[in-house]
Amino acid sequence: MLSVAEARARILAPLRATPAEVVPLAEGWQRVTAAPVLARLTQPPRALSAMDGYALRAADGTQGTTLRVVGRAPAGHPWDGRVGPGEAVRLFTGSVIPEGADAILLQEDATAEGDTVTLREAVQAGRWIRQAGQDFATDQVLVPAGRRLGARDIGLLAAGNHPWLQVHRRPRVAILATGDEIALPGDPIPPGGIVSSNAHALAALVRAAGGEPVVLPIAPDDRATLAAAADAARGMDLLVTSGGASVGDHDLVRSALGERGLEIDFWTVAIRPGKPLIHGRLGEVPMIGLPGNPVSAMVCGIVFLLPAVQRLAGLEGAPLPVTQAVLGAALPANDRRFDHLRATLATEPDGTLVVTAFPAQDSSMLRLLAQADALILREPQAPALPAGATVQVIRLDTLGL
Amino acid sequence: MLSVAEARARILAPLRATPAEVVPLAEGWQRVTAAPVLARLTQPPRALSAMDGYALRAADGTQGTTLRVVGRAPAGHPWDGRVGPGEAVRLFTGSVIPEGADAILLQEDATAEGDTVTLREAVQAGRWIRQAGQDFATDQVLVPAGRRLGARDIGLLAAGNHPWLQVHRRPRVAILATGDEIALPGDPIPPGGIVSSNAHALAALVRAAGGEPVVLPIAPDDRATLAAAADAARGMDLLVTSGGASVGDHDLVRSALGERGLEIDFWTVAIRPGKPLIHGRLGEVPMIGLPGNPVSAMVCGIVFLLPAVQRLAGLEGAPLPVTQAVLGAALPANDRRFDHLRATLATEPDGTLVVTAFPAQDSSMLRLLAQADALILREPQAPALPAGATVQVIRLDTLGL
Repeated sequence: MLSVAEARARILAPLRATPAEVVPLAEGWQRVTAAPVLARLTQPPRALSAMDGYALRAADGTQGTTLRVVGRAPAGHPWDGRVGPGEAVRLFTGSVIPEGADAILLQEDATAEGDTVTLREAVQAGRWIRQAGQDFATDQVLVPAGRRLGARDIGLLAAGNHPWLQVHRRPRVAILATGDEIALPGDPIPPGGIVSSNAHALAALVRAAGGEPVVLPIAPDDRATLAAAADAARGMDLLVTSGGASVGDHDLVRSALGERGLEIDFWTVAIRPGKPLIHGRLGEVPMIGLPGNPVSAMVCGIVFLLPAVQRLAGLEGAPLPVTQAVLGAALPANDRRFDHLRATLATEPDGTLVVTAFPAQDSSMLRLLAQADALILREPQAPALPAGATVQVIRLDTLGL
Repeated sequence: MLSVAEARARILAPLRATPAEVVPLAEGWQRVTAAPVLARLTQPPRALSAMDGYALRAADGTQGTTLRVVGRAPAGHPWDGRVGPGEAVRLFTGSVIPEGADAILLQEDATAEGDTVTLREAVQAGRWIRQAGQDFATDQVLVPAGRRLGARDIGLLAAGNHPWLQVHRRPRVAILATGDEIALPGDPIPPGGIVSSNAHALAALVRAAGGEPVVLPIAPDDRATLAAAADAARGMDLLVTSGGASVGDHDLVRSALGERGLEIDFWTVAIRPGKPLIHGRLGEVPMIGLPGNPVSAMVCGIVFLLPAVQRLAGLEGAPLPVTQAVLGAALPANDRRFDHLRATLATEPDGTLVVTAFPAQDSSMLRLLAQADALILREPQAPALPAGATVQVIRLDTLGL
């Protein structure tokens, strides 16, 4: 069986970021830049005051000196003259420093009287002055390509004078849940059937990865319907199926899509929960076939689909949110499948992150998956570990998972 | 001056979560539940097979036994009969266990021939059978109130048969940037002026907190315009201003909004970057006045606005993403203002999180803020610390900040 790392590498290898589109700055949050964004101006554009006070010549800046206030320069209203000896100009945070001045007297250190001001403290040349370009200069890179924009980036790109942004188009991901036994929430449930959770859980995961999900109608276990449903995936950036991927008589995905030209790369991976996992290509559309079991579908979705959508979205090397934690309880040795144990996290007073696996790891228990804070990663043949040992975990409380 | 903790408590105290609205399950991702969501069915509804194979009586389950296959039960198509002695029923993952059967023979342990099957391994009663209600039972709480829904929750609520969700309405947050010296990106820039970054950075932060930003036109430093702009905030859940909050001559927010009935709770906080920070109420609308400096606005936004919007959004006690890290370089003693040092994070091979403050901490440097991974929290009068000391940090690489 294929290892998890090799399967992921083979899924990611053919994927390319979507082309760029233009969006307004106000819609740029969490989008991924398609090119480096350069500053369109120098910031600050000229030397500015960092405080409210008075501009003066440092040569006049000894304590007790009285200066004549010859002008006012509110922010946005520069004073056009030149500050001469014995002169000062009233200014405010963000005001342009007038020519001739090279020091700031803070308002709280000044005694104003009529059109004069007296220094209660000495001033220091350059102090409280923000030099032109101190933050950034025209044509400097503000944000590299491939960055998912946070609120701070949006602020920086605004300051760099960008009303529009070039970002990768959100990858469109078709999601096809299969099975005679499943129904959408609120729809009539077949005898002995269950409500489908995979389609909408995977759609949310696609959103979390920066994609745009397209949930197709549920396909019953019927060759023709399944093949027709797959046609709906044409023009998508990725097709994801759930169910029908294992080796039983009723596993139709491979054969039904085979009639539509599915080229299969592999169909089992040494992973738990999971194992039946198809990777291939249906015409131009890359395809990932996840297991039908909801817990397996979600875990395999995190391990394989999340990075695939991130790569399509332009996040080239986005790693899974893996971190270290200390075991709160012992673990048995692992077999030949890479395991992902559902677990809770707690932080000790000294900051140590403690992870404890649920006693029950049955892959049908969706409620435990939703309650889990993390997945403990267990390599194939990993030895038994005592409480206190260090393990790698995927944090599920991040990324909207 | 007010402490950061007291200021935050006074900002949060009067805020209440918005009322509920109904959204489709497919739009529930990242929304906050307004009530506990109970399971509408029992999952699994009946005992189901966890594997492909055959249902039989455990009493018939010794190795070498040959059984007559009397029926087939694909998932979604239960077999209605009763399994008698010497009989087996073919089934698949998700199939309902027929009456009479209490054991599963795995497909890989079975030799099928005509309408018989022979056990190559003994079976164990109950093994590979998922009992009714093993995941959850009708009326059990699937998701509590006040939870921001992740992809796994969406799957669980789907499985619990919920096509609609009751979630808190996204709080509407009016954002009003003020100042003669600022212009929106792409608009003409006043002499000596700068491009406004606060409005759109704060709008993104509001989105990150689960709110819906309403960016008002920039208000020049003009009493009448400012007061009129504030009228636009009627009916909003929160008004946020930036700029015009300090003690200089051109700080109009307090006086202009005072004419519109602003009741001020406080207007300075012992925080850096920041300090001028208004909290009050304009008629029915709570108001937070952030500093105009972009770095101060963003840091005060994270410390005060983020939890405020989260509380309005129904996340009652959402803490800031504070974690512990080890200093990569020494820090000087702090003065009387609670400081937030912009810093980078790195993870050592042993998993230790190392945080290192940028040498420059000038609050005009928006690019450094965007490049920071974390803010180091420095309590008022905190002593100097050597490299290797443990500090608290706010992680900025989470939450879309």
